[in-house]
Amino acid sequence: MSPPYKLTYFDIMGLAEPIRLLLSYGNLEFEDCRVPRESWPNIKANMPFGQVPVLEFNGKVYHQSIAISRYLAKQVKLVGKDDIEDMEIDAIVDVLMDFRSKVAKYHYDGDEAAKEAYAKTLFGEIVPFYLEKLDKQAKENGGYLVGGKLTWADLILVGTIDYMNFMAKKDLFAGAPNLIKVKENAALVPTIQKYLETRSNNHRC
Amino acid sequence: MSPPYKLTYFDIMGLAEPIRLLLSYGNLEFEDCRVPRESWPNIKANMPFGQVPVLEFNGKVYHQSIAISRYLAKQVKLVGKDDIEDMEIDAIVDVLMDFRSKVAKYHYDGDEAAKEAYAKTLFGEIVPFYLEKLDKQAKENGGYLVGGKLTWADLILVGTIDYMNFMAKKDLFAGAPNLIKVKENAALVPTIQKYLETRSNNHRC
Repeated sequence: MSPPYKLTYFDIMGLAEPIRLLLSYGNLEFEDCRVPRESWPNIKANMPFGQVPVLEFNGKVYHQSIAISRYLAKQVKLVGKDDIEDMEIDAIVDVLMDFRSKVAKYHYDGDEAAKEAYAKTLFGEIVPFYLEKLDKQAKENGGYLVGGKLTWADLILVGTIDYMNFMAKKDLFAGAPNLIKVKENAALVPTIQKYLETRSNNHRC
Repeated sequence: MSPPYKLTYFDIMGLAEPIRLLLSYGNLEFEDCRVPRESWPNIKANMPFGQVPVLEFNGKVYHQSIAISRYLAKQVKLVGKDDIEDMEIDAIVDVLMDFRSKVAKYHYDGDEAAKEAYAKTLFGEIVPFYLEKLDKQAKENGGYLVGGKLTWADLILVGTIDYMNFMAKKDLFAGAPNLIKVKENAALVPTIQKYLETRSNNHRC
């Protein structure tokens, strides 16, 4: 029998890694379908709004990585203790996505002159601004982003750090000890530890 | 006594209009604090992550417009019937935000040559792509975005249409009859109708 969840994305961490982490955290069995780039044009046409990742289960295809992550967080009980805490989690997740998109803007800019000009703002202002505020929040919450305990916001961070460093071509988080602590705390969970130690890029559909 | 909610944003619809709609829908009294542009530098320094809108209540300041909207949707009961429907709402809200940001990229581009080049892709490909898929979803859901009934996803759309048209300098939604129907259906709710008829830009802090 095939696993109940089928995740479709490219053969990278990218936007799917938080979903892989959440599924792994909860011991939810999933098919980790990694589409080779050459197959993408054919698959794209069948994706809702032409994008991946998508998660398929019970015969339906669900899209948007953060919407999927929030759904899975409810299933594996990594949400807040009430509506207020859920709002705080949602807010910091959207901050992380804003931060990621500002780094992505650098990575995906094909115009070398514009890229160089933007690099000054990105690395001189934007990155330090976000890191200082995010690190402060992680410090105040004892090595977690919200509520002093592990929530799906932490797994969004853990699943996005490597992708952001890859896009920035440097270790963005080296000077943010409390964000590193968030990653370390998440890795103390046996299911997360096991996933991080055994994850591979070898599975293809 | 001051109202329980204080919303702080600029004197425009922008990212705050869905929040104003949700508060108004639920008859939740709020102070609609609109900051003049000249006061912004002083206020920015005190905002979480340097941005507005923020919503203040019970002595705390909450940020990120979609996180705030989702919280308010829970309070006024405009959420889905279960976790799956909530994921579908979250997904379409994130699609609307992706769509908005692609229009914003055009509006805020200060380089006229780059702007003209991007306009071809935006109006020739991106806008038709999103409108066709969004309109189809609204048609399948009987003039709503999810679940055949009013949810906060509809109010995100209603609150974003004018801002997007302003940024695009044209009526983007003229050829999307089912999205127009979403707006008409929302306006059938007396509290929404009253807000849309009486909203003003006159309140300043």
